[in-house]
Amino acid sequence: MVRKVTIKDVAALAQTSVTTVSLILNNKGDRFSAATIARVKAARERLQYEPDYFAQNMINKETKTIAVLVPDINNPFFSQFIQGVEEIAYQFDFIPLIYSAGVHNQKVDHYLKELVRRNVDGFILAVPHLQKTTLDSYLQKRQIPFILLDQSDKQHVGDEITVADTQGGELAARYLIEQGHHKVGIVLPQQRAWNIEQRSIGYQAAMLRAQLPVADDWQITTPLTKLGGYQVAQQVIDSGVTAVFAVNDELAIGLIRGLCELRVRVPEDISVIGYDNIDWCEYITPKLTTIKQPIFELGQEATRLLLNRIADPTIAPQQKVLSIELVERESVQVIHH
Amino acid sequence: MVRKVTIKDVAALAQTSVTTVSLILNNKGDRFSAATIARVKAARERLQYEPDYFAQNMINKETKTIAVLVPDINNPFFSQFIQGVEEIAYQFDFIPLIYSAGVHNQKVDHYLKELVRRNVDGFILAVPHLQKTTLDSYLQKRQIPFILLDQSDKQHVGDEITVADTQGGELAARYLIEQGHHKVGIVLPQQRAWNIEQRSIGYQAAMLRAQLPVADDWQITTPLTKLGGYQVAQQVIDSGVTAVFAVNDELAIGLIRGLCELRVRVPEDISVIGYDNIDWCEYITPKLTTIKQPIFELGQEATRLLLNRIADPTIAPQQKVLSIELVERESVQVIHH
Repeated sequence: MVRKVTIKDVAALAQTSVTTVSLILNNKGDRFSAATIARVKAARERLQYEPDYFAQNMINKETKTIAVLVPDINNPFFSQFIQGVEEIAYQFDFIPLIYSAGVHNQKVDHYLKELVRRNVDGFILAVPHLQKTTLDSYLQKRQIPFILLDQSDKQHVGDEITVADTQGGELAARYLIEQGHHKVGIVLPQQRAWNIEQRSIGYQAAMLRAQLPVADDWQITTPLTKLGGYQVAQQVIDSGVTAVFAVNDELAIGLIRGLCELRVRVPEDISVIGYDNIDWCEYITPKLTTIKQPIFELGQEATRLLLNRIADPTIAPQQKVLSIELVERESVQVIHH
Repeated sequence: MVRKVTIKDVAALAQTSVTTVSLILNNKGDRFSAATIARVKAARERLQYEPDYFAQNMINKETKTIAVLVPDINNPFFSQFIQGVEEIAYQFDFIPLIYSAGVHNQKVDHYLKELVRRNVDGFILAVPHLQKTTLDSYLQKRQIPFILLDQSDKQHVGDEITVADTQGGELAARYLIEQGHHKVGIVLPQQRAWNIEQRSIGYQAAMLRAQLPVADDWQITTPLTKLGGYQVAQQVIDSGVTAVFAVNDELAIGLIRGLCELRVRVPEDISVIGYDNIDWCEYITPKLTTIKQPIFELGQEATRLLLNRIADPTIAPQQKVLSIELVERESVQVIHH
């Protein structure tokens, strides 16, 4: 076994003490002579000494590490989001630790507890339904910086990044209405994260403004997955709507496949609009019309806000809202009355 | 600011020394009396003391952490793989750190170096084209356990997990041949990881066995992405093949979309078979026939092998090959001659 080079070896070669070497290599050696500093650095170079991370951490109390918690790494939305995080973290020499907390959040507490113990410098929390008590007990009490994604909560006054989701939901519904649809349904999950609820509110607002009623069976609930969309195809047909707003793209893509199997044509028989603009929208038939969230930028921006906060804990709360836009493709058709 | 409870507080309350507390809380306190042990544990309980992770690590030299390097977290193959890793890691109370090394491996060295410094217990390396010198200098020299995924290399004699990819490529081509196709093309990347090369070898073997020639322009190279598949649709048409083996599903799905836009029907005009069996195969039209890799199990198994190795570094090299199977869906058609 190759013996690891230790700080003692460096001290011996440089003919000085371990403490001196430790201080110099941690950039705390101002009080030593230039000759001593040069000797220590030469010895380190010659022995190819890598400081022990944990020993170093005890001196610096800084890990240059951020943790990112998402519900599901297998959802293209989150994998694109993570790419944005990684780009900025890499630029600033931080290591991002990525965790799937599980769609039911079952691992959130486990991961938070472990990561706090490991002195992570900060958190990006993109998991829905976080308890205020969880945040308080693990993070706020210890003054560990964190950014919440898409979880606005009037009780929370910290850093936060959101997307203009009410506006997004409204835009989706208004677009369908402008194409001549009066019977516009919505497909969404039963238990809704804050951002999904905003999309639903936007949809309701657009219908109200156009003085269109919303029948109870036009609001179809199902899990927020491709399979969830697939499974409600018959229900969508039975509801009699001519157009549907699916609150995310996976849901929309599953629904389109379900409709296709039931011999219902999209968009000729039923129009579908999604939300997110994941890259898969371009690769299904018909291509999916959707509301584009700036997913990659969202990851970048969340990371920037967090690094700002880590660099200076005293700055004012940072609130950032990113905007959305419509991407017209092939899944919505004009209806003439 | 809330002052963090330190080990000194525990020692003071338990009326003993810091060393005694440290040894007892790290389960190295056998030599102390039951009364002392009880007093220390009561004090820890009362003060809600959480041992400092870094101090503890210096004593135990164990982080209960594994690192997983994949080329691209945005590829559904790798996100499903990671879910398998997370499940086993969670069971055994290890924390998995996930990294996208970038499709061109640009971050591999950076991450390896950082993670070694952080005393990660082991690595799962699912990135292609790793240099032997990289492995040697960062890992082998330091005797850090690692598992290579899909990278068999005759020079390497460590732990390794692979899929029966030659067999998989052969099965894909043989299936197309059995459906009556004689002109069978292959779509694959120019620069090939070991496992992709095996699929190509399997394809060649099946064609040879059936005494079918392979024309040069039946081997179409393009990047291993949906866009890569999309971009060679015209080239596939021009080559005159009646069936194509795309060496992964994303490639196949992009190709199908490209053919659709050029008014070529799949499978009526050209049959397509993919490889991987990502969940998206079920949600495109036509549903994709493919070779199924046990992706989730691959993640689980890689993690098991690594944890075995961490638990006992002296065990013999572990080699594991997982098998593949054909999943028939809608993208391949029988040809009658």
